[in-house]
Amino acid sequence: MSTTRRSFLAAATGLPVASAFAQEPRNGAPLSSWSDGNAKKAILDFTARTTKVGTPDFIPAPERIAVFDNDGTLWPENPLPFQLAFAFDSLERELPKNPKWKDDPFVRAALDGDAPALLADRYKGLFHVLGLTHAGMTTDEFNARVETWLKTAKHPRFGKRYDECVYQPMIELLAHLRANGFKTFIVSGGGADFMRVWTERAYGIPPEQVIGSYAQTQFEMRDGKPVLVKTTEHVFVDDKEGKPVGIHQFIGRRPAMCFGNSDGDKAMLEYTTIGNPLPSFGLIVHHTDAAREYEYDAKPKSSGKLVEALAAAPKRGWTVVSMKTDWIKVFPFDT
Amino acid sequence: MSTTRRSFLAAATGLPVASAFAQEPRNGAPLSSWSDGNAKKAILDFTARTTKVGTPDFIPAPERIAVFDNDGTLWPENPLPFQLAFAFDSLERELPKNPKWKDDPFVRAALDGDAPALLADRYKGLFHVLGLTHAGMTTDEFNARVETWLKTAKHPRFGKRYDECVYQPMIELLAHLRANGFKTFIVSGGGADFMRVWTERAYGIPPEQVIGSYAQTQFEMRDGKPVLVKTTEHVFVDDKEGKPVGIHQFIGRRPAMCFGNSDGDKAMLEYTTIGNPLPSFGLIVHHTDAAREYEYDAKPKSSGKLVEALAAAPKRGWTVVSMKTDWIKVFPFDT
Repeated sequence: MSTTRRSFLAAATGLPVASAFAQEPRNGAPLSSWSDGNAKKAILDFTARTTKVGTPDFIPAPERIAVFDNDGTLWPENPLPFQLAFAFDSLERELPKNPKWKDDPFVRAALDGDAPALLADRYKGLFHVLGLTHAGMTTDEFNARVETWLKTAKHPRFGKRYDECVYQPMIELLAHLRANGFKTFIVSGGGADFMRVWTERAYGIPPEQVIGSYAQTQFEMRDGKPVLVKTTEHVFVDDKEGKPVGIHQFIGRRPAMCFGNSDGDKAMLEYTTIGNPLPSFGLIVHHTDAAREYEYDAKPKSSGKLVEALAAAPKRGWTVVSMKTDWIKVFPFDT
Repeated sequence: MSTTRRSFLAAATGLPVASAFAQEPRNGAPLSSWSDGNAKKAILDFTARTTKVGTPDFIPAPERIAVFDNDGTLWPENPLPFQLAFAFDSLERELPKNPKWKDDPFVRAALDGDAPALLADRYKGLFHVLGLTHAGMTTDEFNARVETWLKTAKHPRFGKRYDECVYQPMIELLAHLRANGFKTFIVSGGGADFMRVWTERAYGIPPEQVIGSYAQTQFEMRDGKPVLVKTTEHVFVDDKEGKPVGIHQFIGRRPAMCFGNSDGDKAMLEYTTIGNPLPSFGLIVHHTDAAREYEYDAKPKSSGKLVEALAAAPKRGWTVVSMKTDWIKVFPFDT
């Protein structure tokens, strides 16, 4: 993030650039929004036993890599993934400048909220719409669009900025891990460029620790200045088996801890915890709380289907978090 | 790097895992292998003026990103890039297990040292040979091969392990930058997987800060255990215009400092220093020392052609280092 972008962000959001979320309180217990149950105990036990020098489970600091899915793990993915809300809002905002879009069946489907039309034929319409809203502009232009959107859009149910709708217990978990020398990464099916605009502020995770889906950019000199133009070429989808592939490509080490919420995270949970010479830890956030957030697993209304990973959890020793019972608070704005 | 790999490395190399190179000496002057000249002064001035809180040139710590080319910038690229030495040695070692290779004209060219045959037709032969030696195996298998090679191979001129042939002044520079809060990255045309095996030990640069060329891996379960298999698909070449593209893809921020030695680094030097809202710094290592290392620019015998970037340096304000006069010592083993 450039200074300009940083200053713009601070001005635009009214939030401090380095969020208070980023650090664990020096005084006071860790994970204070977690109720005293098996999940909290499993986390605290793992960080305690892997950070004591000279004990068998000690993990040297450089190997303390923790990877987090984003949608459904660090923030919600309902009523639709937030990046899609951004894409659809962008179509609406840019429509007057692009009169031809009115004859585009996929744009119409998006504006009408016709998800099946977008998802048919291997997500053909969705990729088309993502191309219209995520490519053909410089990275700086795209960042500014995301910032503008964040400043104005509100989550339809919670009435808050999307980047305020983050899970307070997970923010505390990120801080707890960092306080114990773990380097925290996002490994998400979402777009890397979309996430990097706000992850540092919201989660304390800098851009270089955000792995996501992407299409390649193209380097150009424009008016004597270097720019990177976003394209739709060489797409990498950081989901399912793509997650361990992305982890290897970007991190080059096997993680010691992995946090997810859906079958899309199963491969990276396996990669983290099966046959790892280091002690390892896997955790699944189970959406069990219709009152405070959403309740789904096998039949989600949005993304986030959770069947296979949940079934595998007991055998693999993955900790399953029940949002309803394990989390005292869901969002920072909950009372 | 897994614990296993780490222990193996330590045992194999006899070197401490965390190299003494990684840290700047607490007592004593920084950059002690640099002679007192313009280059050393420019570096020290830049780190001094960008790290004083409250001054106009202050760069917030998270924005202190420094990117380094590897071949020719941190270690030599003569008589041929070291990774090619690894590839050719691998062909020779694996030849008995692959009798069909004897009829492969590109393998023969490689074993005969016939570079023109490999480089013809857009490096067709070279990519073929890289495919034979860098794909079709798991990442763990590949890492072990690189480790074995490092343990046994010696640089033909210097008679040392390849990973000992690193530039002492650049090791000190990396340490100096880290001591000033800069995060140091490699951005190299070399293979990411090849470099990540030894960069942490040699340079203090962890795998997740190594950006290089790569082909995608494939996730598989073998005998119930997850592995990543190296393929020749979805190749990314991290050179020339690919370098800023790689920087964006992996780091997501514009660097404040950039260090290179050839025209392959020109685009990332431009991306770092032209129109950057942050104070920025570019530096070119000029190979002027036939006696202690090599002397080349426009007509290198190996890679590392330097014409355009050198010509642009005065206009762009890039510091040019003369290896012969700016470096008191070239290698750690120099007396």
